[in-house]
Amino acid sequence: VSDEAAFIALMRDLATSGAARALMDDAAVLDVAAWGGGDTHMVLTSDTIVEGVHFLPDDPPADIAWKLAAVNLSDLAAKGAKPVGCLMNYSLSGDARWDTAFAQGLGQVLGKYAMPLLGGDTVRMPTGAPRSFTLTAMGSAAGPVPARAGAKPGDALYLTGTVGAAGAGLKLCRAGKSEPAALVAAYRRPQPRVREGRALAPLVHAMMDVSDGLLIDASRMAMASRVAIIIDHVPVADALRAWSGDDSIAARLSAACAGDDYELLLALPAGCFPPADLPLMRVGEVRAGSGLSVALDGENVPLPDRLGYLHGD
Amino acid sequence: VSDEAAFIALMRDLATSGAARALMDDAAVLDVAAWGGGDTHMVLTSDTIVEGVHFLPDDPPADIAWKLAAVNLSDLAAKGAKPVGCLMNYSLSGDARWDTAFAQGLGQVLGKYAMPLLGGDTVRMPTGAPRSFTLTAMGSAAGPVPARAGAKPGDALYLTGTVGAAGAGLKLCRAGKSEPAALVAAYRRPQPRVREGRALAPLVHAMMDVSDGLLIDASRMAMASRVAIIIDHVPVADALRAWSGDDSIAARLSAACAGDDYELLLALPAGCFPPADLPLMRVGEVRAGSGLSVALDGENVPLPDRLGYLHGD
Repeated sequence: VSDEAAFIALMRDLATSGAARALMDDAAVLDVAAWGGGDTHMVLTSDTIVEGVHFLPDDPPADIAWKLAAVNLSDLAAKGAKPVGCLMNYSLSGDARWDTAFAQGLGQVLGKYAMPLLGGDTVRMPTGAPRSFTLTAMGSAAGPVPARAGAKPGDALYLTGTVGAAGAGLKLCRAGKSEPAALVAAYRRPQPRVREGRALAPLVHAMMDVSDGLLIDASRMAMASRVAIIIDHVPVADALRAWSGDDSIAARLSAACAGDDYELLLALPAGCFPPADLPLMRVGEVRAGSGLSVALDGENVPLPDRLGYLHGD
Repeated sequence: VSDEAAFIALMRDLATSGAARALMDDAAVLDVAAWGGGDTHMVLTSDTIVEGVHFLPDDPPADIAWKLAAVNLSDLAAKGAKPVGCLMNYSLSGDARWDTAFAQGLGQVLGKYAMPLLGGDTVRMPTGAPRSFTLTAMGSAAGPVPARAGAKPGDALYLTGTVGAAGAGLKLCRAGKSEPAALVAAYRRPQPRVREGRALAPLVHAMMDVSDGLLIDASRMAMASRVAIIIDHVPVADALRAWSGDDSIAARLSAACAGDDYELLLALPAGCFPPADLPLMRVGEVRAGSGLSVALDGENVPLPDRLGYLHGD
């Protein structure tokens, strides 16, 4: 099983934390007392991606690895958690170059976000089976840890950045295009808001990451919090607007329904202003009631049939 | 996506811990301060199983679920960890009865070992793809946490039970047989030594679970600890001996090379005797040097070509 041994050696290069026990033991062992910084909670999240469902066979393997880790890091960010480590469950593809490129991308994203590899499992698949990968991320957070629930009437709703770039990047990728590079990169190499989440967690009433689209995720926050949410501003990505030249209400609504931006959506109590060094965009407000509504340029806008991206669409 | 919603509802029934946030949030959140009992370490382990590689399409789904959780619980046991929770990454099979049976088996094993479901991910596979499942288990342990390394010359080597029953059960299953039931059950529903691991962890120099066979796992402990290990007794399962009627050296050696027993192998310092209420079997001793040797009935026994079970064999 030499390709397995070769891949595990690549993983061992990433498993530099003592908690990983050099991937030689039955389990990873984290000393919780060493977290320090007042963190009292462990945050756990896991995502599985499958070839042909969540990524395409000809996607660059380094980008697939980046995105898998970034998606999990975004969940940690939504909890205000500091990455502590991750487990990688990997299915060998029978293509050592592919596996090596995946490991390189994984090393890049784990290095950037300081999330050491602690363990996991490597398996061989039956011939012809699609690749599938699971990454499980652990973070530490101070309590209380924000949830989707908790938004209150009177809260202002903020986003940590813009929307639409990743969705446009997906369309470009599907069309076999690689330009504009900023849009493709937004789709393939999302930058989870780990630092921002950690700074915002103590301030918010509710927080979540926007993975499927601003409108659908805002409607989920409204439902979990049992409140009404009004979106009155859609901060469209500059790169998207420059490329499309379209700033119509329809274009803004489309960006608000696009997935994969991985910004944080948060409800801040009235009178609480976001830290000046965080690039927050005010997108709406929370009211008593239920459901989602959209008002742009001062006018109510009918909700589109699909509020966001759903796998299987 | 109604079968997905139905399956997630089954999972929600198992996710009764507050840390699971009813599977409605972006991540699970564990209050580490609530562990109590002096536990300062988080133990993490994860296994992926694939249809056609680690289990067969006609294996009972409830047993597949049991075994997946049990294998992870055995890794926690080897660290002396108390189960805290788990994440389940599930690939829908398109067969709701199969999925439901899997969920029932999962509920049984999680209930027996008090390991609540905290989260995970449910994905749809492309048509015809093999099922694959990942379970990630978390436990809490007091430090220092045992490792495979650490065995010292003069230590006595113990096993928490017997060997060979699960390997015989696997052969029976492959031959389409369901009797003797005790052997089949040993293979399909292993009973990880969680209680024993927790009691033994403060006493041992080294500990690991025996998943691939007594001889191969003992040789791994010898290598990790940089010592020699002599196995001088093979405690063959009563049910296996009663069925085979064979207590020859060859039969005992075969049982020592059989996998899937999930007992704990531990090195106890000289003069430290195991607690009387734990069913420990003395199997050998640790000496200066390197490598594994076997002596049965007072005679050196040549090592077999294959010391244990390896996936892919």
